[in-house]
Amino acid sequence: MERLPGFRDFYPEPLPPTKDELWSMDARNHVFSAWRSVARRYGFREYDGPPLEPLELYTNKSGEEIVGQLFNFEDKGGRLVALRPEMTPTLARMAAAHEHAYKKPLKWFSVPQLFRYEKQQKGRKREHFQFNADIVGESDPAADAELIALLIDSLRALGLGEQDFVVRLSSRGAWQQFVERRAIPPEKAYGFFQIVDKLERERPAVTTQKLAELGVTLAELESFISSGEPTPELRAILDNLAARGLAAFVRLDYRVIRGLAYYTGPVFEAFDIKGEFRAIAGGGRYDQLLKQVSGGKVDLPALGFGMGDVVLTELLKSRGLIPRFTAGLRAYVLIEDETLRRESLAVVQRLRDAGVAVDYPLTPTKSDKQFKRALELAAASTVRLERGDDGTVQSRVKDLTTRTEWIVGRDEVLACLKAEAV
Amino acid sequence: MERLPGFRDFYPEPLPPTKDELWSMDARNHVFSAWRSVARRYGFREYDGPPLEPLELYTNKSGEEIVGQLFNFEDKGGRLVALRPEMTPTLARMAAAHEHAYKKPLKWFSVPQLFRYEKQQKGRKREHFQFNADIVGESDPAADAELIALLIDSLRALGLGEQDFVVRLSSRGAWQQFVERRAIPPEKAYGFFQIVDKLERERPAVTTQKLAELGVTLAELESFISSGEPTPELRAILDNLAARGLAAFVRLDYRVIRGLAYYTGPVFEAFDIKGEFRAIAGGGRYDQLLKQVSGGKVDLPALGFGMGDVVLTELLKSRGLIPRFTAGLRAYVLIEDETLRRESLAVVQRLRDAGVAVDYPLTPTKSDKQFKRALELAAASTVRLERGDDGTVQSRVKDLTTRTEWIVGRDEVLACLKAEAV
Repeated sequence: MERLPGFRDFYPEPLPPTKDELWSMDARNHVFSAWRSVARRYGFREYDGPPLEPLELYTNKSGEEIVGQLFNFEDKGGRLVALRPEMTPTLARMAAAHEHAYKKPLKWFSVPQLFRYEKQQKGRKREHFQFNADIVGESDPAADAELIALLIDSLRALGLGEQDFVVRLSSRGAWQQFVERRAIPPEKAYGFFQIVDKLERERPAVTTQKLAELGVTLAELESFISSGEPTPELRAILDNLAARGLAAFVRLDYRVIRGLAYYTGPVFEAFDIKGEFRAIAGGGRYDQLLKQVSGGKVDLPALGFGMGDVVLTELLKSRGLIPRFTAGLRAYVLIEDETLRRESLAVVQRLRDAGVAVDYPLTPTKSDKQFKRALELAAASTVRLERGDDGTVQSRVKDLTTRTEWIVGRDEVLACLKAEAV
Repeated sequence: MERLPGFRDFYPEPLPPTKDELWSMDARNHVFSAWRSVARRYGFREYDGPPLEPLELYTNKSGEEIVGQLFNFEDKGGRLVALRPEMTPTLARMAAAHEHAYKKPLKWFSVPQLFRYEKQQKGRKREHFQFNADIVGESDPAADAELIALLIDSLRALGLGEQDFVVRLSSRGAWQQFVERRAIPPEKAYGFFQIVDKLERERPAVTTQKLAELGVTLAELESFISSGEPTPELRAILDNLAARGLAAFVRLDYRVIRGLAYYTGPVFEAFDIKGEFRAIAGGGRYDQLLKQVSGGKVDLPALGFGMGDVVLTELLKSRGLIPRFTAGLRAYVLIEDETLRRESLAVVQRLRDAGVAVDYPLTPTKSDKQFKRALELAAASTVRLERGDDGTVQSRVKDLTTRTEWIVGRDEVLACLKAEAV
């Protein structure tokens, strides 16, 4: 039996050599751990919602593309439900429900698994994990800068530098002004944004034709993009990031507009400099979404970004930034004298009680096979109980890197391992 | 808009006072972190599979009850799929696919979210997270003992002791022998196991009647249960646990049989001693499942347990074993002189770069409100840049517990916070 197409299995390292596309659980934990630790450093608090939500949380809020790609169905109670394709509507729902009890601004993050029924192609899965960070209740561009700084630092924490990625900063608001100046009818604004969003991927002839229906030429679009004049709020964001010493990681680029319908202000996307991969992360302001999701009850400005694990992991791999992982064993307890098995189990238990990672042969095993196993598991040391000449039980502790050996009393193994670790 | 019934929202602490049932994300992380750290201490490696699997992975393998409660549907490609109701079939699928590349025994764990469409009642959700640990490729009862020791130590790591819980140990094999001795037809064996499984929850009259159809009396069942004679493999497990000093945490109890169809040998469940809650964890041997899932290609003995987060968290709460959580901020940077905002941002950035958790007011804020915010966020210290008499910028670092204050150079804040932490 096989897993569903577009879904991933995460195995412990070292990964088997196979044609099957396997993902590393250890690498996933490495990335998640960087996300969480940087978010906490920024004072963000973690939250989570259900992976299954009412379908109507997404319809008409996220834009047509995402809704057409939902994993949606009717549950056994006749409810129309969907696997979450993105986290922002859940965040908006949760924040709207209980924001009154939290001091503003909320700085919240989450690492949800998200689902889309997409056509399959390289790097396009039907699920991925996404680091989501949002700030709710602050309209000042200082919040946008804080969020973008978090995005930059989460990538830096994984070893990526300004030679690897850049955040392209733009503004849905600036494009909204363009729409108004050009008198594009309001109901066609989102369609126009989607043309801009696809600009870099679409053939110019197609774009030209689509724009013509709105009375705009491709030259006018490109002229606006190359004007490169930041709006006052974009200027404030750039200044703020410069004060943090992060100016090299961000540049103004009006080609970015974001595909989702709900953005209202500054928007941004992070890309690898070489342009080998799809966007690493993207986000922006969605000042109307909480009001919309709460049926008008809660009206708070908000902004956020999402960073998926698939593109990021591919980028990290290509830069040699994923370490090798092992079981991280501090010691492997060899049991060569089976009359000492019970006492060896007691030593294993005592070490584990003290927080030390330990493994041992579950059943009687030849001496050389045990030692080989200790090496395969990359244990730092071996521990072996043995009877001394006077019949008392002693422990032989061996450092597998230096091959130094100590003989200590049965109760001194922990102290010996700790001393050795220093 | 509201979340679906039976699903949970996890909020950051302190949780809002509300009638809505909210869960603590911080408490969830606390529990997950204990699970992961004890599993690693035992040499278990983490894996994960997709939350959505082919429906046929569950049909006829898990038992009727679980299959009737699936969240299943047809996807847009016409595939019959289901949200995973338990992890063992996924583990069996993944292990069967790539076991040849890993040394046996595999010791693997996972913390999946699982889904069942159940009738709603207290403590019965439609999703929960479950700590799953499995050993694949070892038939000796030493593996069962290692697994049960891990179960016991994961609960001990959260502060629970022998006054709080006990593991009831039984054997599907022993019940299988009962079935054979009583000549219950093989095709009715699973039905019989379900009667035993429901023994403690069902009215005796109903049980008696169901048993009668199989030619067994309730007295015979109770006599077998109270015989209390361990099978040789249960004896080996009990001895092994005793050698680790864990005898007080386990007792023989044939009333346990486990509801799932695939168990073959020793089975066990952990309960709170006072009997206030449903089972905390349960598991056992399923030596035939890999063969079944792999279509006969891989035939490896295996065993595992699952421990859900819902009952466990309720138990921990009732014992006062869930700590209080805050944002864990090391410092709050006060910005009282707005001409020093840019320099303050640089200090914030430098501290965060060094791994220190820091927050600050995003926008100009009254001095007393800033200080109040630092206290609300439970920051350990405040840091404030100010101009000295000679015009140079200096930093005032204040320990919010002792109220001690230091005045240091702008570049010495990190060193000061580190020294203070000692």
